[in-house]
Order: sequence, then C-alpha cells, then structure tokens
Amino acid sequence: MDFSTTIAAICTGHGGAIAVIRISGSDSLNIVSKVFKPLSKSFTLNIDAQANRLYNGFIVDNSGNEIDRVVLSIYFAPHSYTGENVVEISCHASSYIQKEILSLLIKNGAEMAQPGEFTRRAFQNHKMDLSQAEAVADLIASKSKAEHDIAVNQMRGGITQEIKRLRDLLLKFTSLMELELDFSEEDVEFADRNQLKSILQETENYLKRLVGSFKYGNAIKNGIPVAICGEPNAGKSTLLNALLNDERAIVSDIPGTTRDTLEDFLNIDGVTYRLIDTAGIRTTDDRIEKLGIDRAKNAISKAEIVVIVLNPLTDVSTQFHEIIPENFPTEKIIAVVNKSDICDTIDVSTLPVGVNVVKISAKHKTNLEELFSMISRLGDFNYSQDEVILTNIRHYEVFKRALESVQRAENALMSGLSGEFVSQDIRDALRDFAEITGDEITTDEVLGNIFKNFCIGK
Amino acid sequence: MDFSTTIAAICTGHGGAIAVIRISGSDSLNIVSKVFKPLSKSFTLNIDAQANRLYNGFIVDNSGNEIDRVVLSIYFAPHSYTGENVVEISCHASSYIQKEILSLLIKNGAEMAQPGEFTRRAFQNHKMDLSQAEAVADLIASKSKAEHDIAVNQMRGGITQEIKRLRDLLLKFTSLMELELDFSEEDVEFADRNQLKSILQETENYLKRLVGSFKYGNAIKNGIPVAICGEPNAGKSTLLNALLNDERAIVSDIPGTTRDTLEDFLNIDGVTYRLIDTAGIRTTDDRIEKLGIDRAKNAISKAEIVVIVLNPLTDVSTQFHEIIPENFPTEKIIAVVNKSDICDTIDVSTLPVGVNVVKISAKHKTNLEELFSMISRLGDFNYSQDEVILTNIRHYEVFKRALESVQRAENALMSGLSGEFVSQDIRDALRDFAEITGDEITTDEVLGNIFKNFCIGK
Repeated sequence: MDFSTTIAAICTGHGGAIAVIRISGSDSLNIVSKVFKPLSKSFTLNIDAQANRLYNGFIVDNSGNEIDRVVLSIYFAPHSYTGENVVEISCHASSYIQKEILSLLIKNGAEMAQPGEFTRRAFQNHKMDLSQAEAVADLIASKSKAEHDIAVNQMRGGITQEIKRLRDLLLKFTSLMELELDFSEEDVEFADRNQLKSILQETENYLKRLVGSFKYGNAIKNGIPVAICGEPNAGKSTLLNALLNDERAIVSDIPGTTRDTLEDFLNIDGVTYRLIDTAGIRTTDDRIEKLGIDRAKNAISKAEIVVIVLNPLTDVSTQFHEIIPENFPTEKIIAVVNKSDICDTIDVSTLPVGVNVVKISAKHKTNLEELFSMISRLGDFNYSQDEVILTNIRHYEVFKRALESVQRAENALMSGLSGEFVSQDIRDALRDFAEITGDEITTDEVLGNIFKNFCIGK
Repeated sequence: MDFSTTIAAICTGHGGAIAVIRISGSDSLNIVSKVFKPLSKSFTLNIDAQANRLYNGFIVDNSGNEIDRVVLSIYFAPHSYTGENVVEISCHASSYIQKEILSLLIKNGAEMAQPGEFTRRAFQNHKMDLSQAEAVADLIASKSKAEHDIAVNQMRGGITQEIKRLRDLLLKFTSLMELELDFSEEDVEFADRNQLKSILQETENYLKRLVGSFKYGNAIKNGIPVAICGEPNAGKSTLLNALLNDERAIVSDIPGTTRDTLEDFLNIDGVTYRLIDTAGIRTTDDRIEKLGIDRAKNAISKAEIVVIVLNPLTDVSTQFHEIIPENFPTEKIIAVVNKSDICDTIDVSTLPVGVNVVKISAKHKTNLEELFSMISRLGDFNYSQDEVILTNIRHYEVFKRALESVQRAENALMSGLSGEFVSQDIRDALRDFAEITGDEITTDEVLGNIFKNFCIGK
C-alpha cells in the first residue's frame, strides 16, 4: 500500500442533513484549495492557515459553479487522526453533492480511500498501535453499552497495557535465564528455579484469564445466546414476543407452528442477549418438524442460557427431562412455568436442584421482570468494567498461542531441559505479543486482512 | 413553538464512521460544558472560547465515564447556521455512542429538535427567508444535477429576487394609482392608463413564466415521466432493461408478461427520467390483463414523453393508432422500431408527421445512444440554469393566486372600474408574495406544515 498518496472518502452514513468528507495526505490542503472558494476574501487555504479552525466557503467545480456551501475543518500533521494533513469538508447530505465533491477531489489528485485506510495510516504514523486501531472498528460497530465499554478500554490501550505487563514479566525471566546461558558451558544453574517458575506461572495465569475472557467478549459482541425451548404449544413464541415486546414470531394454538429457529436481540442493562426461539420438541414423523427439532437441540447445546418453557397442565419434570440433555449444567437453566393465569399451584420441587425457576404468564406478560433479572444474573460473567476482555478472534488466537508457548517453557523448566529450549519458547511468546500491537514488522497481508473489515471513511 | 429552548439532534445519516450531533440555543455551550472534558487542561468551554474553532476532548457521563473521544466545532450567535450559539459534536458513528451523547445532552437541559427545527430557527432569526429555508430541504433531497441546481438557485435567493422585482413593479403601480385615489372625489384620472396597463402586463408575463415553470420543476423533482408502451411482446420490458442496463423487468416471450406498470429512474445528462413500463395493449378478456391495460392508457395520458415500441413484423401504422390516443401531440412521441436485428427495412413513412422515429434492437442494445439523445432532447424544457424554476407546490399555488389577482386588476383597469377595485387586487398580490418569503406574519400552522417534511437534524 502506497502512503505517499492523498486519500479521500465520505465518512458519514446514508441520509441525514449533514455529511462529512475527509481528505488526508501531504497534498490535502493543495487539493482542497483548488475547489474551495472561501467566504472571507482575505483567506487563502494553504499551510499558513490556522490549524484546528473552521473555514466557511463554497465548493466550486472547474467552471466556478457552486456545488455547496460548506465548512472546512483543518488539522495539520502530526496533530490529526491520521497523523497527516487532514481537511474535513462538512456539506449538505444530498447524495448528489457528496458524489460531486468526492469526484472533484479525485479529479484534482486525491485517491479513493480504501476501507479502514485512514486508521491504517494512523497506525503507520504511530498514532495508535494495532490493537487500538482494531478497537476503532469495534467502537463504531458497538450497539450496546457492554460492547462499547470493551472497545473504549481497548482503544485507550487496555490490551497494550496487558501486553506491556506480560512482556515485562517475560523479559525479567529472560534476563535471569541469560546469565545462566552465558555460563552454560560450565553446567551451572545460576537462576533460582523457584523464582523462574513463579514468573512463568504468573504469566500463565494472566494469559489464561485473557484467553478465557474471549468467550465473554464474543458473547458480548454477538449477543449472549439464550435458547428458548420446550414442548410444542408450551408458549415459547408467545414468550419470545413478550420479552421483545413485539410480534416477532407467529403464534397459534396449533402445536408445531414454529419450525425454523427464530432469533432476535434483547438488551438488558446494556448487555445484548440473542434470543433463539426453537421448535417444540416431541416425537414426530413429520420430516420438516424433525429438522426443526434437530436445530432446537443444537441451539440448546450451544446456548449460554437455556430458558425451558413448561406447561403446568402436564408433569413438569417429565417435560424437563425430555428436553434438557443429561448432565447439562443446571445453573444455566431457567425453568419458566408458563400459563400462571390458568394454573399457578404447580409443584416445581420435582425439577433438578440448581435450576432457576420462575412462574409467569407470557400471554398476560405477568412476572416478566423476574425473568429479565434472572437472565441478567446468569448473563453476568463477573468481569469488571476495567478488565481487558478479548472480542477479536485474532487477539484470542495469538494469546492462545502465547499461552501454549509459556506452558511449554514451564514444562521444559520443570523437566530440567536446557535453558536454550526454555528461552526459545519465551521468545516465541514475546513475538506473539508484538503481533498484537503491530510492534514487529507485520506483513501487508495481515494488515490488509485487519483493515478490510473497516468501513470506508474510517 | 418555543424558541427559547436549546435543541439537539443527530445530523448525520445511519452508518458511516463519523457522526455529528448539533446543539443550538442560548444554553448550548453551558450544556455541552457539563459533558465535555477537554484534552487541553487549560481550556474551559464557555463564551470566552474562540468561535469557529475545533476543540478535542471527551464526552463523559455523570459518573465521569468516557463515552467517546470527540471534536467540538463552536459557532457563536449570530454567526451560525441557526443564528444562535451552536456546538457540533463530531463523534464515532456507533449507534450506542450517538444515542448516549444525545441522551446526555437531553439530561443536561437540551430538548430533542423537531424535524427542520434548526432551519426554522435560522428563518426566525432572519438568517434566510422562507423560500430559502424550503430550498434547504430540497437541496438535501437532491439526487440529480438538475434538482441540485434549482435548489441552489433558490437557496441563493432566486425566488426572493423574482419577488423583489415583482413587488417593485406593483409598488410603482400603486404609487401611481394612489395619487389618483387621493383626488378621487374630483373624478379625475391622473395616472397614465397605458403606463399602468404596461406595468401590469409586465408583471403578468413574469408570473406566467414562473407558474409555467412548475410543470418543469415538478418533473425535475419527481423525474420526467416517460411511458413505454406498445403491443404485447413488442419488447417493452427488454427495452426498459436495456435503458437501465439492468434486469429490472421480467422478460419472457409470453405476451402479457408485464401486468403492473413498473417504474424506474434513469439519469441522462443530470436530468432524471421516470421510465414507466406498461402492459401491452390489446383486446383481451383476461380481467387482470384488462386492469393492466387501463393503467397503461392512464400512464400514456400523463406522460411527458411517450415511447411506443413497434414490432416491425406487423404494420407499424396500425400498431401506432391502436395505442396512441387521437390528437396526442406527436412531438412528445418517440416511435421505437424494435428488433432491427430481425428486420430493418421497415417503412416508417406511414407514421404521423412529427413523430420522432428511431430503429433499435433492445435485445442487442444497438442504437440506444440515439434513443437516449432523443429522450434528452424532448426532456429539455428550454429553461436556462439561472432561471428561477418552481418545484414547490406551495410557491406554485401562491404565484397562481397572485397571477389571478393581477389579471383581475388588469380587467378592472380595462373596464374602467374605479381605482379602489384595482388597488385591492394589487394589495392581494403583494400579500401573496409576502407569504412566500415569510415577510408577513406567517401562521404557526403554515410554518409547521413547511418544516415537518424536513429531516431531523436540519
């Protein structure tokens, strides 16, 4: 990728009243000056202009026709988002105007920015490290408070700090080892094995926590999966609609109405849950219904929380064991005894110990609050807001690899292997960390893969 | 509507990388200062801040949590879009961040802006007159060069200047009349009848041109309607697809495939055409097909340009007269002799004089360029770019009413009615003009109707 060019893109979304077009690169002021007619006749747009200022004027085409009245924001390198000279053009959000201004910039020497190219330049110009750059995309995509908080933490260098801590530990380890290696010919052990072991164990614990956080991070990003299951006609779709306060699923009193697994998102206290309404599970010869039941079972096995809707008119324990696989962790299960308007004297003591039980009426929307807080409690992964949580599969895989290296080093150390083996594993882990922050030379291909998922204009 | 409040809204569209939230009103700086933590510790956001400047910092919630890193643009009254103190917050375009910042502003005293409220305040604060304010909405909605140019002309005061010219003429007329009225007891005619008559005629001609321009303006705004008609299986849908370079309509060799009238837009040289593909016209007993044929005939009667697709394998003159209503202006008709790949020796001399004829093959896309330029020529209303063109039905109706008043005044003058009658008509016309620019007191209801069609954030 060529960073000597000047790039331009529309940065705002479709519609709206205002749009912003950003141009970045050494030639950005020069290019904009060719199409900008300032309102104040005494002003000339060049590097003598004041940084961090707003300038009123018109964008004009080559024949002098006014395209739009605009406001320019000017930032000079290195004090800009990209670290280059940047001009942002704030114009009216007509699709015609936006296209016209962008094409005027291109005609005058700018190039269309690739997705994520502004942020990639920010990374190349050391305005942020790679994990911070990746957090920008997450931040823009965030729809819930939980997602947002994780992205903000990462943008502020959360992962970078973790890595610094991990690097410090491993560098301390390496320096202790090196002393020994210098004298390796003499077959002496200088370094205190216990101290070395304790450093590796501390590193391992950090890494385990980080790698483990991905499960939560991923759930936060994609919504914590909540399977709603039960026998046919237990009221699963009615419950889904009640939880969403919407007519999402088709509801009828014909058992087997829901065949596909329907999904929708629910936000409780800033955390997104992915509700999965499944087909009623029963013995059937209907081929399509069977497929639906297979999907339902699959959804239950993958869910973080299982809501089983029970019909109080037949035995609840039988229903439970028919639907929930054996050995499924009971603390993840919420047994919803539905139709409390018809029958609320049902005995739930026959349900397995540890299962969370709540009596509601999905139809009349009674006692839903208790169900909400139960879901919220089960969805709380006990990570504090300030903790670093991995949401990015690239980070997850690199940290997992680093964890394996550290564990290998630990084994080598315990089994008395030579210090060279141990050091090799530690160097591997250190290189892994550098891959996350982009400190070591990262290939164009890796960077390309990272930034291609950005939106254009960022 | 209460203009003492401070209002806020998201001004940019959905998606994108950057979003802009605007806050306007006397309390805007104070409200933003409660949620803004400047990057530079020496800076305080208050009226001592520099206008037209960009300030870096963070939006923080009441507990001090950072919601986003943002850039503020500050404008002081009266030098802002609304004429009030305005702060624009440029943030990351996450839906969570946008909602969160907006709700923080509301919590701290701002109110949600109504659609068009920023522009309505600009009007109330005399930053623009009513016709200019209305042009803002047109400008944002403009999708083609023609629409854009009309809106820009109107924003720059095109209509305002026309009205000034019309007012000047009528005021000159009034001053001449008044002299006469002062002496009306004495039954003398002071004013030169010929001079009076010529002033009214000049006014009438201006108004006629303006009122007449609405037909063009409306077509520009909604697309100039082009009906594509012909016998079943003449290749109408194939032609529509070829013109759009798209598979818009379902094409088959079964006559009567198209039943609905399909519409799509085509841009030629910055002008938008609304192509209407109609059902093939023939005698049929099929009820649904009959409905389609009725619609086809209706589309032809309303079209500005009629493209009749002729099958060269049967007599073209017969086809023409079967489909085109008698007395339909021939200069609006383009006879497209299709299937030139099969048969290009067809004699078109039997078609009525004045009809534009072009031979093409829709299937092989040959000679389409000639058809495009024919459509473009027929769609040219001969208005120059600098001319004022009405696109707004409110303006059209007011000018039409003013035209009637002037014509009434002219008749009164000619038939020797007393000067008081004439003056009354002229005063009516002057009041009409004031309604367009909003110079006279315009009711809250009228203003409400005008601004409710704006998008929120403008």
